[in-house]
Amino acid sequence: MKERILAETERLFWRYGVRSVTMEDIAKQLGISKKTIYQHFTDKEQILYQVLQDKLVKNQSEMDCMAISTDNPVEEILHVLTIMQKHTDRVSPNLLIDIKRHYPQAFALFRQYKERHIMQSILDNIQKGMQQGLYRTDINPAIMARLRVEQIELAFNNDIFPTDEFSMMEIQHELIHHFVRGMLTEKGFTIYNQYVTLKDEHNLPAYEKK
Amino acid sequence: MKERILAETERLFWRYGVRSVTMEDIAKQLGISKKTIYQHFTDKEQILYQVLQDKLVKNQSEMDCMAISTDNPVEEILHVLTIMQKHTDRVSPNLLIDIKRHYPQAFALFRQYKERHIMQSILDNIQKGMQQGLYRTDINPAIMARLRVEQIELAFNNDIFPTDEFSMMEIQHELIHHFVRGMLTEKGFTIYNQYVTLKDEHNLPAYEKK
Repeated sequence: MKERILAETERLFWRYGVRSVTMEDIAKQLGISKKTIYQHFTDKEQILYQVLQDKLVKNQSEMDCMAISTDNPVEEILHVLTIMQKHTDRVSPNLLIDIKRHYPQAFALFRQYKERHIMQSILDNIQKGMQQGLYRTDINPAIMARLRVEQIELAFNNDIFPTDEFSMMEIQHELIHHFVRGMLTEKGFTIYNQYVTLKDEHNLPAYEKK
Repeated sequence: MKERILAETERLFWRYGVRSVTMEDIAKQLGISKKTIYQHFTDKEQILYQVLQDKLVKNQSEMDCMAISTDNPVEEILHVLTIMQKHTDRVSPNLLIDIKRHYPQAFALFRQYKERHIMQSILDNIQKGMQQGLYRTDINPAIMARLRVEQIELAFNNDIFPTDEFSMMEIQHELIHHFVRGMLTEKGFTIYNQYVTLKDEHNLPAYEKK
């Protein structure tokens, strides 16, 4: 039952954000009583915390897997768009805004993940890229990694990128391609251009093409 | 007298931040009484507001002048580092943190300036660069300009870039060069490389070289 509650709540949160989804809605969707939910969770924030924690663990595995299965750092860092699209497709722009404003514990979890895991993945990527001669060696990896981590959150900032003017994937695509290009050496550009052309030929989603 | 108060207060704020400077300190430095200051200003926040407003107007003129006097958009956008160094050299890292946390009116002024003037300068720069074939035409100027504006503030964020680990000019240098490189076409790189090499030969400050 606990798993079913988590799965359904995740679906609802992703679609409508956190604030507008009530315990009543969750119970109704599952055809159970609110009492049953309260046997497993003390409140909505606790469900959110658990949903987010599971999601972040899963995301980490995907990132690790990606680092192993891709051919080079350029492909690896750009491949994050594919993962992002899978996760942010049909996600309500309210979700992160709600969490940021009203659920400090869940937001702390997200922030911690960002600072520890995402930062480390990017640092590893940058170091690999430099070793392989694909990224310039005169960049400062600590500054670049921090910039990239902040960019991820920037795309969710509704004040800077109003959701009626920009789509999430458009922003993420623009930011990551610009981020990578800014680090490339001439050798790096060769790999990058091959990768981008290949994606084009396979007729992948519009956000991958431009 | 008003001008003298503004000039001295600016010097003190830039050096120590806002919070730790008292009306007493300002009076003492000028060899006048606090009463004289209060004849011109109601409180410290009002002086800060005026100082900031003057500074931003001056900064805007410098930016406009730069756009006219530089040879091309690449040189123009990188030249901002020279202006920044002039202004942020010896500036206390407390200054923007103090303003952001404790002086909402002054911060609103800074934010407004950022959103109107800086954003517009960058948008103009990007459009010129695209027209001249120096920046890629497949970038989204609206997203890029917002990214750049946020980067300026990012460098002042003490949580992301602790002042004991990073110097302001090191961060600004890294961010702007990365920002420009991410937009360049092959033709743009030729101009960029010439400009960077030229700076090296003239033996300019370390932050300009890397």
